[in-house]
Amino acid sequence: MHVRRLELQAVKEFRLLSRVYEHNAALGARVLIPPGDDMGMVRIDGAEVLAAVDQIVAGRHFTLESTPLALIGRKAITRNLSDIAAMAARPVAALAAVVLPFDWRESQALELFEAMRTTAERYDCPLIGGDISMAEAPLMCSVTVLARPGPRGAIRRSGAKPGDGVYVSGRLGGSVQADGSGRHLTFEPRIELALALAERYDIHALIDISDGLGRDAGHIAEMSGVQIEIDAARVPCAAGCNWRQAMGGGEDYELCFILPAGVELPNELAGVALTRVGMVKRRIADEPAIVVCAGGETIDGSTLGWEHGAAT
Amino acid sequence: MHVRRLELQAVKEFRLLSRVYEHNAALGARVLIPPGDDMGMVRIDGAEVLAAVDQIVAGRHFTLESTPLALIGRKAITRNLSDIAAMAARPVAALAAVVLPFDWRESQALELFEAMRTTAERYDCPLIGGDISMAEAPLMCSVTVLARPGPRGAIRRSGAKPGDGVYVSGRLGGSVQADGSGRHLTFEPRIELALALAERYDIHALIDISDGLGRDAGHIAEMSGVQIEIDAARVPCAAGCNWRQAMGGGEDYELCFILPAGVELPNELAGVALTRVGMVKRRIADEPAIVVCAGGETIDGSTLGWEHGAAT
Repeated sequence: MHVRRLELQAVKEFRLLSRVYEHNAALGARVLIPPGDDMGMVRIDGAEVLAAVDQIVAGRHFTLESTPLALIGRKAITRNLSDIAAMAARPVAALAAVVLPFDWRESQALELFEAMRTTAERYDCPLIGGDISMAEAPLMCSVTVLARPGPRGAIRRSGAKPGDGVYVSGRLGGSVQADGSGRHLTFEPRIELALALAERYDIHALIDISDGLGRDAGHIAEMSGVQIEIDAARVPCAAGCNWRQAMGGGEDYELCFILPAGVELPNELAGVALTRVGMVKRRIADEPAIVVCAGGETIDGSTLGWEHGAAT
Repeated sequence: MHVRRLELQAVKEFRLLSRVYEHNAALGARVLIPPGDDMGMVRIDGAEVLAAVDQIVAGRHFTLESTPLALIGRKAITRNLSDIAAMAARPVAALAAVVLPFDWRESQALELFEAMRTTAERYDCPLIGGDISMAEAPLMCSVTVLARPGPRGAIRRSGAKPGDGVYVSGRLGGSVQADGSGRHLTFEPRIELALALAERYDIHALIDISDGLGRDAGHIAEMSGVQIEIDAARVPCAAGCNWRQAMGGGEDYELCFILPAGVELPNELAGVALTRVGMVKRRIADEPAIVVCAGGETIDGSTLGWEHGAAT
């Protein structure tokens, strides 16, 4: 269940979320992972089936005027594939519901659908259904993906333990440029990396970095009941970013993952850089779930998060 | 894959659809039912898993100003449940992606979510994930449902054979009132009926009536490569409707199903009236897929379909 914090101005998403989650216990044995993780999971005739939905809206997640339709369709699918990576799962299939503005031409619709279809297939996640409406509304694509667990089962946000190490893939920050372009349109969902990690290591917790490392590592800390301490000097920053921008930028679609103490991780796996950025500690009441150590100071890291739409 | 015909004005949905479907053959063995039916189906670790997505948009599928939020949330879920009925399948889980208008209050969001959650649970289809955005846009709810096959496996649109009988459940027409109210907000998805039928009979083809009997029986005829002949005098019309309104009204969410010749069907099953309305014939080149016999005349039935949004 995704709710972008700063996107919800009138609506208090914390209360909305807690209302949704408070019913999790009553969902029954079929529901193996309830709302609150990157994907939900159910058991169907013996199989474990993961599912997640995510949407992009023109003017919020991309700039319609300046973004090629091929990249909009690509992003609609790859955002969801990043959720599959965040469970160390394998893609199975996708479904797309699209609202087209009334003034759209057929050629535009075709280009968008072709981009979604070919992206989905490239990641072995074929489109098996969809819905198209036209409305007096901005372009919207809502995509659902189905997945099956990877080599060690679905990896949740909730397994971090005091003493564990905190790692990230790639370099963070600067994904959304001022004109709406940038890596948020062309990023590579880290499915292959997540599966390679899960094959080799006992990953305790895993999330994709969509709202900024501060926010997303904070989700792991909250769900695991621990505190995460990030060393600002270790955060791998994209060119031109300082650690604050790297931790708060959002739309990185890299992975943040937690490994037991003592793991010797290579600097690179599946062609992606890996960096240890901090450690998991016991959480003491009233302390923030995530803190950042920078220049001798300790800062509440949960305040570092993506201000959605700031750059678009 | 749903595309409402008359909703798509600028976009030629026939060409859009054919472009989507032309890739079906390349989808691979994992995809058991490709786009083009009420739900897609994939095999996941030995299990057959059905999935479909459908969306409702304010101003198109409901009138925001005059419709209680509880009924909007209900309809967002029950439309999808009707797709599950249309495969004679069993609900497993649901996911909801919602775009809230910027001016919404928290209490409105809560009421909408509570309606979706309680409706989903009432039909044993718990919400396991979602996404919430706010945008300068009309209220939109996109819901994905997962299901598993019923007693005889998933029943498709493509199995009708010449000589079969054509049946409908309930009474048709008049679902959308001029003020936006009506049965389209309160209908009962026919899951129980579909499962009861599948347990007792060898259903050759099945669809839910969302765009009007003319249009939807036409889908069965097209997918089965047959002609369907409806006897206008037999169509069970809702109060105040003639057969043309009953066949073209849309949003009935009753079932249209095809049974082998010689089946003796009761007048009622699972508390719902059942009526034989026609028969399946060989399709001769250039003849319409669906015809209606009325007062000695034979009419092209594919022209009878729901003019989406006409009443809202």
